[in-house]
Amino acid sequence: MSDPKSYHMTAEEFRRWGRAVVDWIADYYERVEERPVLSQVLPGQVRAALPAEPPMQGEDFAAMLADVESLILPGITHWQSPNFFAFFPANTSGPSILGELLSAGLGVQGMLWATSPACTELETQVLDWLVDMLGLPSKFKSTAAGGGVIQDTASSASLCALLAARERATNFVSNECGCDGRLVAYASHQAHSSIEKAVKIAGIGRRNLRLIDVDERFAMRPDALAAQIQQDRQAGLIPCFVCATVGTTSSNAIDPLPAIGQICREENVWLHVDAAMSGTAAICPEFRYIHDGLEFADSYCFNPHKWMFTNFDCDCFYVADRATLINTLSVLPEYLRNQATESGAVIDYRDWQIPLGRRFRALKLWFVIRWYGVEGLRYHVRQHVALAQEFARWVEADERFELVVPPPLNLVCFRHVGGDAVNEQLLERLNRSGALYLTHTRLDGKYTLRFCVGQTRTTARHVRCAWERIQRTAAEVTNKHL
Amino acid sequence: MSDPKSYHMTAEEFRRWGRAVVDWIADYYERVEERPVLSQVLPGQVRAALPAEPPMQGEDFAAMLADVESLILPGITHWQSPNFFAFFPANTSGPSILGELLSAGLGVQGMLWATSPACTELETQVLDWLVDMLGLPSKFKSTAAGGGVIQDTASSASLCALLAARERATNFVSNECGCDGRLVAYASHQAHSSIEKAVKIAGIGRRNLRLIDVDERFAMRPDALAAQIQQDRQAGLIPCFVCATVGTTSSNAIDPLPAIGQICREENVWLHVDAAMSGTAAICPEFRYIHDGLEFADSYCFNPHKWMFTNFDCDCFYVADRATLINTLSVLPEYLRNQATESGAVIDYRDWQIPLGRRFRALKLWFVIRWYGVEGLRYHVRQHVALAQEFARWVEADERFELVVPPPLNLVCFRHVGGDAVNEQLLERLNRSGALYLTHTRLDGKYTLRFCVGQTRTTARHVRCAWERIQRTAAEVTNKHL
Repeated sequence: MSDPKSYHMTAEEFRRWGRAVVDWIADYYERVEERPVLSQVLPGQVRAALPAEPPMQGEDFAAMLADVESLILPGITHWQSPNFFAFFPANTSGPSILGELLSAGLGVQGMLWATSPACTELETQVLDWLVDMLGLPSKFKSTAAGGGVIQDTASSASLCALLAARERATNFVSNECGCDGRLVAYASHQAHSSIEKAVKIAGIGRRNLRLIDVDERFAMRPDALAAQIQQDRQAGLIPCFVCATVGTTSSNAIDPLPAIGQICREENVWLHVDAAMSGTAAICPEFRYIHDGLEFADSYCFNPHKWMFTNFDCDCFYVADRATLINTLSVLPEYLRNQATESGAVIDYRDWQIPLGRRFRALKLWFVIRWYGVEGLRYHVRQHVALAQEFARWVEADERFELVVPPPLNLVCFRHVGGDAVNEQLLERLNRSGALYLTHTRLDGKYTLRFCVGQTRTTARHVRCAWERIQRTAAEVTNKHL
Repeated sequence: MSDPKSYHMTAEEFRRWGRAVVDWIADYYERVEERPVLSQVLPGQVRAALPAEPPMQGEDFAAMLADVESLILPGITHWQSPNFFAFFPANTSGPSILGELLSAGLGVQGMLWATSPACTELETQVLDWLVDMLGLPSKFKSTAAGGGVIQDTASSASLCALLAARERATNFVSNECGCDGRLVAYASHQAHSSIEKAVKIAGIGRRNLRLIDVDERFAMRPDALAAQIQQDRQAGLIPCFVCATVGTTSSNAIDPLPAIGQICREENVWLHVDAAMSGTAAICPEFRYIHDGLEFADSYCFNPHKWMFTNFDCDCFYVADRATLINTLSVLPEYLRNQATESGAVIDYRDWQIPLGRRFRALKLWFVIRWYGVEGLRYHVRQHVALAQEFARWVEADERFELVVPPPLNLVCFRHVGGDAVNEQLLERLNRSGALYLTHTRLDGKYTLRFCVGQTRTTARHVRCAWERIQRTAAEVTNKHL
């Protein structure tokens, strides 16, 4: 099994089992479409099949792979199935998986520039590339006063943005003395739940998060934002942070950045823009309008791990003024001091994030961009948007269904006209069938189905089959109701 | 190159390039020992070799692998070299790398139980195993009121612990209304910098972190902690959190948990124990004393990604009362609601951490434990400790050097008797040579060299060669001084 002298896997064993895992993954993708998308195990079922106690002696790798097949696979909800239309996608691709593998093999911990210069510099370069690829404001480049960094998730990026905003508003007094309950943050009530989580984590408090009203397309109303800021200022509070969303989680609403940005500039409030899924669309010039007004933003994030074929986790977070972010998060103990850091000539990304350590995540992103090229990425984004728009037309053409909002990109919010109970049953039956997976939200209080097209291998056939099954299942549900 | 119809990597291409990357990694480990451990590139050098603009058309995978070899590799500081003695290790192993590969291939996002039950349940099971493997208090098991979760780093674990402590102390008022500047946290001045970072992030403020004095072995003085808590209470402040360290970063000092724990219990203050590197030692019964007093702790973390052959990132974080942690971090928007969550029968790990999304990190940990078995892991921990102790004896036997503290486990703090300048030059020359990499700290104000034995493939030969080079280089430095 393992090298008897050391227990370590030998080079030959690694080659052999490495090939076995590569082949297992290739096989997995060839059969994933046939598997139930949403796992059908019951709570506790996977666990009950695992030994109660850890092994004292080492085991053969073949036994582990066999257990992955028999014990783990039934408990997987297949995010990589072409029939996955739930939440936002977390799509991946061959070059990304191999980038993760290489990163794991190198085993680099890139907390400081010195602990692997390539880990830092490749990240800086690729994030500058993405500014051009998405047509983002050039102030977000490392060659200006800003810069980009890979975070695990948009949740963490938003928290970092909020912290930097908090410190800018209090001239770093919050870091020093703690919060004092007067800071106020703003987002539409359609913003992602991570904003509320961040406001709590940062010691600002949920009551000091103002959830601003939205218009008929669920986008933030700038007039309501401006009025709330005025009201808070008059109450002696300190508005410090606005989160605008480009593509809300519930309905893909796009907050009006030009008007919101103008207000933030006049009020000297930090504007963070969360484009977690939808930002990727800007790789196509025809969708770049979603970022109109981004020149007002102090920070911005989008997730290549959602819609750009790059393994979770990979959120790209940009700031216009890196000094404020670094001053907010930097702590420099003696044991991390080194010549490169003291020279001031390098970036230490540990000061751009919550954790100290970091993986070499730029590799997978670099591989994806190089493998597909900008043209390949555009091709797939356009395909996904076209498929979602076609789905929306089918919904519109069927009088039993209605669109809840016109879909701007690749997320279609729709419902059966039969009311909440019908839609709930419809969703439950669809997901239980295993043939596809979609999730729900509530819009204007009504139970709404979300159909998001973004999986790597989703094609016209999968979308058409999904729609046919939705129609068929709806008929079953409503017949039962009669 | 890629499938012309879709740009995607075909299954056959994935098999081919997957094998190529596996072989590249196997080759890498066979030659890593010959490479300079600390990268010798200059700031900006890697970046200058990269194209200024992203590719419009896709490229061949062979070109990427060639660039990894020629552009990236020179910019790598080799954490996986057997001559890496710097910081704390971030060791890995064959089964762990293959676990990461499988995780990337499955592409699961495990934010909720429902989004892949196996991702959650395997994690719960393996973290329960580790309670037994390390002899931790059984209250940390999921079968009691507590439970474990994989975090990216100890920094994030400590932040989560601090937040839960903050909420427990204020009855969740901080989450609701924000901090009010009266909360106080405690750690020794030898605690990790992430505690200061967490205190700032949580809105408690750096001034409200009391850095408690230490004894002659750099361990926290319980009497000083008790006195400080009294003083703060008398000043109307609210002591909420103590971080004790098992194996400080600078010198591996072990804070006296029984006395600290008793104080925390009497004062009703949350005790978090950070055993980032050293916790792994407890897999050997003879080192389990490091956790004496852990029964007083409310939370605990250690990092298999440091010393347990598991790829970064993998921190195991335990709480004794999971309800407080979950209540601190939970936000439940409509779009995440699902039957399994509502049933109360499952764990949703998103409520145990800062981000929403999460990778399937339990796979690599499971593979490592099964491949090595408890016995294999013990063997290597014992080897590393024995090698460090032997190194310490060599230091003691050479009158030009001195031990700064007796090394409890695998980290030796030592210095040349010639003073700070000699030690600084010695370190700089050693690291520049490429033959090994070690880092420094300051203890009692004196520049101190740290020699940490924990790399997967470090053997007696590497430690002996390192010591011989240290002796030789010291002679060169001091001769030059004469």
